[in-house]
Amino acid sequence: MHAPQEVLQDEVTVRTADGREFRDVLAVEEPLEIRFGFADGTHKAVSITMRTPGDDGELAAGFLFTEGIIDSPEQIKQIRHCGLKIGKVKGTLDRAAALNSNTIRVDVADGVELDLKKLERHFYTTSSCGVCGKSSIEALRNSAQPVAEVDLKVLTELIHSLPERLRKGQSVFDQTGGLHASALFTTDGELDLVREDVGRHNALDKVIGRKFLAGETPLSDRILLLSGRASFELVQKALVAGIPIVAAVGAPSTLAVELAAEYGMTLIGFLRDARFNIYSGGERVLLKADS
Amino acid sequence: MHAPQEVLQDEVTVRTADGREFRDVLAVEEPLEIRFGFADGTHKAVSITMRTPGDDGELAAGFLFTEGIIDSPEQIKQIRHCGLKIGKVKGTLDRAAALNSNTIRVDVADGVELDLKKLERHFYTTSSCGVCGKSSIEALRNSAQPVAEVDLKVLTELIHSLPERLRKGQSVFDQTGGLHASALFTTDGELDLVREDVGRHNALDKVIGRKFLAGETPLSDRILLLSGRASFELVQKALVAGIPIVAAVGAPSTLAVELAAEYGMTLIGFLRDARFNIYSGGERVLLKADS
Repeated sequence: MHAPQEVLQDEVTVRTADGREFRDVLAVEEPLEIRFGFADGTHKAVSITMRTPGDDGELAAGFLFTEGIIDSPEQIKQIRHCGLKIGKVKGTLDRAAALNSNTIRVDVADGVELDLKKLERHFYTTSSCGVCGKSSIEALRNSAQPVAEVDLKVLTELIHSLPERLRKGQSVFDQTGGLHASALFTTDGELDLVREDVGRHNALDKVIGRKFLAGETPLSDRILLLSGRASFELVQKALVAGIPIVAAVGAPSTLAVELAAEYGMTLIGFLRDARFNIYSGGERVLLKADS
Repeated sequence: MHAPQEVLQDEVTVRTADGREFRDVLAVEEPLEIRFGFADGTHKAVSITMRTPGDDGELAAGFLFTEGIIDSPEQIKQIRHCGLKIGKVKGTLDRAAALNSNTIRVDVADGVELDLKKLERHFYTTSSCGVCGKSSIEALRNSAQPVAEVDLKVLTELIHSLPERLRKGQSVFDQTGGLHASALFTTDGELDLVREDVGRHNALDKVIGRKFLAGETPLSDRILLLSGRASFELVQKALVAGIPIVAAVGAPSTLAVELAAEYGMTLIGFLRDARFNIYSGGERVLLKADS
């Protein structure tokens, strides 16, 4: 369920302010290039992300799914590191090999046509300035799906308990102070899946990518816990995956709240110190008195 | 020196876990599309970033400089929001207009040729998979400059004092818990410039962009304070701007430490609670006994 410590963390020698030397544990950060491989033998690099090695296949699948480039695991023939084959559905990697390979290739299944234009929101386009970027900015929310119809209720007590359940459920607890976590819980409060990464968007892509490859999206019966802040980008990814309830330990941004409200998501922030705030979709949160 | 509160923060109505309603202050997040305008009248969108509005011209200039696309303010004819003209060197914006315009255009001076290929590290490329992404990954550190020769010393006491000096020097203190700060200090510990943003890379691009537009780079006599973690990307941007000492309140990543060591930068982490760790370039940090 969780990448082992040696991939997530590494040791360096550091000096303290008073001149002592000691060995400190740091979060591992390495670049990953994600490429498409096509049936005609050509390739295209689609993204480079700075990530913590491990679960790279799931990261690639989650990225391509939440960016709206692919929408079904059947569109993928196989995912492999350059030089190393891994299973598509299993989606997991040899950990040591992952450290040695910073390029992953997603081979597209025969006959699948992809709209690679959607990737251009990161990239150059040539539309006129007069549009004031509207078309590309609108495209940011392109593949998000409304979750307003998802009928799911949770008790405030359960929400309060999530951060502690995350800590207990992790096989490795972040010792570095440098990793973000994304975790899925059932509505009974059971920890289903957790991933940690130096990039919070990568941690979420790894979680969503695993479920996507297993054919388990939309995640309409899951609660997502974010260890940090809730940005527009994270809310948008959760909406592509159909997650109705997102709880963040940190603050949300204005645009994260607007997007959550527009698509009917329950967005909770500042989930710590025996409190939390509900920014949208409060009807899914039951006070003890309501239940 | 600092964008006013109404641009950085906005209010929403929220419900607490026990059912009370109150007005909460959130960090503003909006997309910004950065475009190049060329002498022949054509345009190219080069990036969309989710940022806190304000100082967009400085953000655009800092982004293009730290990505290695431009290297002198003379290459820029003018920077303006679509529909709104702003001064190039002043680099500041009408705050209200900034909220209304999410596209900024950087007009290239006549006769300047830009290597737009450098932007492709974010974008598709067509090089073969066999390279295992090496060329594009090497390009990540492309425009970083060694600072090993920069002779600058600071006392541990001064380093300890930086976070408190930042708080005192800010006209608005982040009430949202959602903003990252980047700040430049003189070696006397005076706060020179601070910017806050939902994206830590944006906060740093705004700081560097302002100095770049004013012709004040390289920043070889400045200390950079980061309110959060130190990633590869932030260290790389600081190296392009020639900053010899970077101190982060949070943790560095492995690759941030490797890059800092390779280029002779002093990198400090966990600068809080009357402690800090030195990860590279310790010769610039003087214990009281040494001085």
